[in-house]
Amino acid sequence: MPFEYLTNIPLDEALKKYLAVLNEHGLTYSTENVPTTSALGRITSRAVYAQICAPHYNACAMDGIALDAQKTFGATETTPLQLKESEFLRVDTGDPLPPGCDAVVMIEDVIEDDGFVTLYAAATPWQHIRQIGEDISAGDMILPSFTAITPAGMGAMLAAGVMQVEVVRQPVVGIIPTGDEIVLPTAEPGEGAIIEFNSTIFSGMLTGWGCLPKVYPIIRDELDLIEAALKQALQECDAVLLIAGSSAGTEDYSAQAMKDVGEVVLHGIAIKPGKPAILGFSEKSPSATPVPVVGVPGYPVSGIIVMENIFKPVMQLLTCREPEKGADAKAAISRRFPSTLKYREFVRARLGVVDGKMVAVPLSSGAGVVSSFVKADGIIDIPQDSEGYEAGELVNVHLKHSPQEIARTLVITGSHDPLLDEAADIMRRTWRDSIVASSHVGSMGGIMAVKRGEAHLGGIHLLDEASGTYNVPYLKRYFPNGGVVLLECVERVQGLMVAPGNPKGIRQMEDLKGKEYVNRQKGSGTRILFDFLAKKSVLDVSELHGYDREEFTHTAVAAAIAAGTADAGLGILSAARIYGLDFIPVADEQYDLLIAQAALELEPVERLIEVLQGDEFARRLNNLGGYTLKNPGEIRQWN
Amino acid sequence: MPFEYLTNIPLDEALKKYLAVLNEHGLTYSTENVPTTSALGRITSRAVYAQICAPHYNACAMDGIALDAQKTFGATETTPLQLKESEFLRVDTGDPLPPGCDAVVMIEDVIEDDGFVTLYAAATPWQHIRQIGEDISAGDMILPSFTAITPAGMGAMLAAGVMQVEVVRQPVVGIIPTGDEIVLPTAEPGEGAIIEFNSTIFSGMLTGWGCLPKVYPIIRDELDLIEAALKQALQECDAVLLIAGSSAGTEDYSAQAMKDVGEVVLHGIAIKPGKPAILGFSEKSPSATPVPVVGVPGYPVSGIIVMENIFKPVMQLLTCREPEKGADAKAAISRRFPSTLKYREFVRARLGVVDGKMVAVPLSSGAGVVSSFVKADGIIDIPQDSEGYEAGELVNVHLKHSPQEIARTLVITGSHDPLLDEAADIMRRTWRDSIVASSHVGSMGGIMAVKRGEAHLGGIHLLDEASGTYNVPYLKRYFPNGGVVLLECVERVQGLMVAPGNPKGIRQMEDLKGKEYVNRQKGSGTRILFDFLAKKSVLDVSELHGYDREEFTHTAVAAAIAAGTADAGLGILSAARIYGLDFIPVADEQYDLLIAQAALELEPVERLIEVLQGDEFARRLNNLGGYTLKNPGEIRQWN
Repeated sequence: MPFEYLTNIPLDEALKKYLAVLNEHGLTYSTENVPTTSALGRITSRAVYAQICAPHYNACAMDGIALDAQKTFGATETTPLQLKESEFLRVDTGDPLPPGCDAVVMIEDVIEDDGFVTLYAAATPWQHIRQIGEDISAGDMILPSFTAITPAGMGAMLAAGVMQVEVVRQPVVGIIPTGDEIVLPTAEPGEGAIIEFNSTIFSGMLTGWGCLPKVYPIIRDELDLIEAALKQALQECDAVLLIAGSSAGTEDYSAQAMKDVGEVVLHGIAIKPGKPAILGFSEKSPSATPVPVVGVPGYPVSGIIVMENIFKPVMQLLTCREPEKGADAKAAISRRFPSTLKYREFVRARLGVVDGKMVAVPLSSGAGVVSSFVKADGIIDIPQDSEGYEAGELVNVHLKHSPQEIARTLVITGSHDPLLDEAADIMRRTWRDSIVASSHVGSMGGIMAVKRGEAHLGGIHLLDEASGTYNVPYLKRYFPNGGVVLLECVERVQGLMVAPGNPKGIRQMEDLKGKEYVNRQKGSGTRILFDFLAKKSVLDVSELHGYDREEFTHTAVAAAIAAGTADAGLGILSAARIYGLDFIPVADEQYDLLIAQAALELEPVERLIEVLQGDEFARRLNNLGGYTLKNPGEIRQWN
Repeated sequence: MPFEYLTNIPLDEALKKYLAVLNEHGLTYSTENVPTTSALGRITSRAVYAQICAPHYNACAMDGIALDAQKTFGATETTPLQLKESEFLRVDTGDPLPPGCDAVVMIEDVIEDDGFVTLYAAATPWQHIRQIGEDISAGDMILPSFTAITPAGMGAMLAAGVMQVEVVRQPVVGIIPTGDEIVLPTAEPGEGAIIEFNSTIFSGMLTGWGCLPKVYPIIRDELDLIEAALKQALQECDAVLLIAGSSAGTEDYSAQAMKDVGEVVLHGIAIKPGKPAILGFSEKSPSATPVPVVGVPGYPVSGIIVMENIFKPVMQLLTCREPEKGADAKAAISRRFPSTLKYREFVRARLGVVDGKMVAVPLSSGAGVVSSFVKADGIIDIPQDSEGYEAGELVNVHLKHSPQEIARTLVITGSHDPLLDEAADIMRRTWRDSIVASSHVGSMGGIMAVKRGEAHLGGIHLLDEASGTYNVPYLKRYFPNGGVVLLECVERVQGLMVAPGNPKGIRQMEDLKGKEYVNRQKGSGTRILFDFLAKKSVLDVSELHGYDREEFTHTAVAAAIAAGTADAGLGILSAARIYGLDFIPVADEQYDLLIAQAALELEPVERLIEVLQGDEFARRLNNLGGYTLKNPGEIRQWN
């Protein structure tokens, strides 16, 4: 297969071109009739008109007597009126109004006496009657075309005698995962086996868009197998997603397969991530509507971006759902973020409102990091003609959550400790509307974020080398005018994590010499502690292999050691325990939360303090191990 | 059964008391394990932690060669470096990083030569490697408790080896419809038979809240039958709704049945509609969680209000879904709206933004008018201590649609003509995001709404008696300073609608004397026309039986005649046709749309004009009959 360079067409242009080609080839929705009682959430394909009136007869709306109102005129408290049996009829709610009657008098307002009734007030014509068509008149339009059917809509249709409703048929979307390395989800994948979860993610997205996903078995990287799978899906589906193999590498057969069974409209879009998408289609027969086929990159983040920005608008042609324009907002970006002029870039971000201003904290940009989509509250959209942003600049954000949710999100940034996740979980178990967004940027990152008003709280454990004390010296340096307080959290033990049984015999800092080390990122408290400990010992960090290898969390460091790619790393006991590593304690340190004085009165902060002081928090930290709780949640004045 | 007065407890107090009693009796959710691949939308019942790292091994991220980066140090364009076969290994994307290697060089950057490779740049340690745990580290919290599982969340769990997830079990909610008069939905209900659609509406609402509805057969109004049904549902469900029979009438057995099988906490809430709700529960066994039982009023609007305000918060105890606080807003109410101090009142309203201000047009307040919920964009919430509002006062509104949708809604009020619905439907078929909210308040109502800035357009057909001309004289009178234009619409024929075959021999206005008439509401153009025609003839309207009987639409008038409760009414041909009535033309009139000059530039108005001028509109009006189209959509200057 000849090596092929991808195009780099701007997103809007690519989508416009693709939709135009599909329209030109007659892509359109189809319809079906469904019982009204099972039409919830479906989209009407034409206007729905009432077949009968609701109510469809004049119905008594009270238990009482029906009569001709004219005969009661003149009745008052002082001049009551008597009616004979022949002049009224007893009725119950829902009974048809008897002929000759035009009013109902409630049973409570009637005095009955042996063949007579006495009335102390005149009846008004049409009182206590649900007149025919009061709710809906036959012929009225109940729902216009292309309207989502709600519970009340179903009720109105049934009331109006509409038992079947014509709706847009839900398109069946075939999903074909490809790749030699991927395997069905399993709890214990072998080395070299990558769990295939894209089809699950895409199925979920499609379900939310009103489509019916149909997942095919995993296909190996062989052109003829991929073509065979594609041909089958084209027969059975209204649209097809071909996952992975969309680049221009030696084993990327998607484009070739799509050309062989149909047409490729374009290959390569100027977006990051998601560039190597392939947009094509196949015609079933000259008379039938074409089947869109999209080659989606295999990295999940790239795939999701292509699904959202390309495949969703295509599906809207088939589902006829109103394009939902999720809310957009402007937010201050929390750190410098360079971007290339080559691509429009989509960056997952945590969002929160601090000091009345929305802040966006960009998450890891790796195309393989699906967890970033779980954490993201929104997507920063960086235009192609932008070279990126300086910290604090306003950026465009597509919100994934409602503005109300974002407004009540507690934003914690800074040093990573699992206790933050545990505290957030306890908050949520106690108050269902609690949302905590924590991101890990190291202790110094936490200080700067609080200083710049981009986080409510910053997790810090910063050793001052001069005094040998924690945190307070940094606050004095970075907040000379005060305005922030320390929320006491925990004492925790840091140690060298090593393989089980400590095969390299590491007992102290000196023993790291010549070993493979895995470090934490610059600005993290753990790295500052390591440098301090190295200086105190005779260890020269320049002799340490791997000093420049950076991980962002304790667990990531532990994972590297557990995998055997490093001999040691500094971290906390709970991380070592999760990975079954040996742990050589080297220091106790104070982990606190830095918080702006003014933020202390926020409800989420009050909740957090309550959690830190509670038994459940102590219990969970005891289970994790390595923590000493003195006065967690206590506010410490420091200046 | 003794007659029992209902309590009138404020809503907040009633709910608080009910929830407290349920809590006290141990009402709580239960959990179940489901496969992660089918957990979409479910709610986690505990925090989910990663079981393995993702990736779970150091994986090559490119096709190329794996090597020890140290061996490449010093390689540059000018000082290339050669490696022997034994110093590197060929790898594909996804392959495990071979032992002894810490970098991958892309195949494109390698020159291969018979047993050697030549490199022109040094490799950086860990380049092109997806390090173990890059996405997720084992032990990381992926999702906190009580979190809705998204597509990306499913992907992250699968990637982290979480194949099963503990979620909140969806509560099964039994729905028992009761009543002698109700029947299963049918296209041709007999007289006295009311279609049972509440269970369909409530099922739809419950589905949306994450519950599993279970609808039982309709039960007649007999205490022992209701009790038997209730006992069965209590065995099979986590909560039960007993529909209708919740008042204090002679055939209202719900409260008694609930007392016989469990406990009634309270009966009667100070809300309108929805007052006669019954809140109770039954204990399955001393150890099991109790089963909430709510007696819901049978009128659909009352039922929906009770479901939303009482049953939904109860279900949240069982579903553990975050209480979604729909957006609230302030809106100017379009007309005087009195309210009683006895109840907190919920009023369905159409909403739109006119001149930058949100406007709420209250819809019919009848408790049986389910169609009002279909039309409503929001619910006006009138506090119990309010006596109501004057026109233009700001009211609290709970939004049913997004603020974006409301902002792009075209608000048309005034005289009713089916052409408005047809035009709205054509707009929506042409532009999927078009929304039109039309309400029927008569021509004079339309003039006043546009004058007060509460509608974009007003449908009018107003005869000036003095000049015998339409619309323009009214504009001169009500808009002496101009600022509005007329959008020409149609000429239409008005006539007397009479029963098929015209049994009463009505040929002209005079013939109405002594007959049963059904009129339109005051301020409607049709009523003004009728008064004018009566004056021109010798008909004295005081001799007309039913002159005070008012309907709000042409179809409602036609329905009354078709039902035989009136002999004649004035209306348009299309209404007569729908009901198969005879039609005696009496006048041609001009129906136009009044619009503020400034609103002409709004996109939805431009769309409407395009529709009025189009072939599809002409085709549909021709099908309806009785219209003459001259220059529809033309703007007429009039002053």
